[in-house]
Amino acid sequence: MRAVVHVTFKKTVLDPQGRTICSTLNGLGHDNVKEVRQGKYFEIELDGSGEEVRSQIEKIAHEVLANPVIEEYSIEVGD
Amino acid sequence: MRAVVHVTFKKTVLDPQGRTICSTLNGLGHDNVKEVRQGKYFEIELDGSGEEVRSQIEKIAHEVLANPVIEEYSIEVGD
Repeated sequence: MRAVVHVTFKKTVLDPQGRTICSTLNGLGHDNVKEVRQGKYFEIELDGSGEEVRSQIEKIAHEVLANPVIEEYSIEVGD
Repeated sequence: MRAVVHVTFKKTVLDPQGRTICSTLNGLGHDNVKEVRQGKYFEIELDGSGEEVRSQIEKIAHEVLANPVIEEYSIEVGD
């Protein structure tokens, strides 16, 4: 089974990398770019199925992949 | 308009961070985790619409966000 986890800074947290990319793009002539936010992305292959896998991935995202103090995450569990 | 770019290592390129996360998860008791691949994720807010924005984002992904020698990217352009 395949799961995908996205981790991004909370909206209230400053994203300095994203801001730097945004100003770089503006400097390269992409004046219409207003905001960039950077995040992390994890593809996880694991055995199992259904609700059990979802709650395992939830636990992994919360405890290992993200820092819940400043980051938020979303989970997609597929085939 | 909002665009999302995912950047990951090409399948043929070793992903040491992903491999480390995988072995860490195995060590934490998540024995059913077989593979982890880590990537980057960018949310871009920009003015414009349609095909023009898509080709601009394509250019940004190719020239700025990804290293096409070892990375591949995918683009979603939304509202």
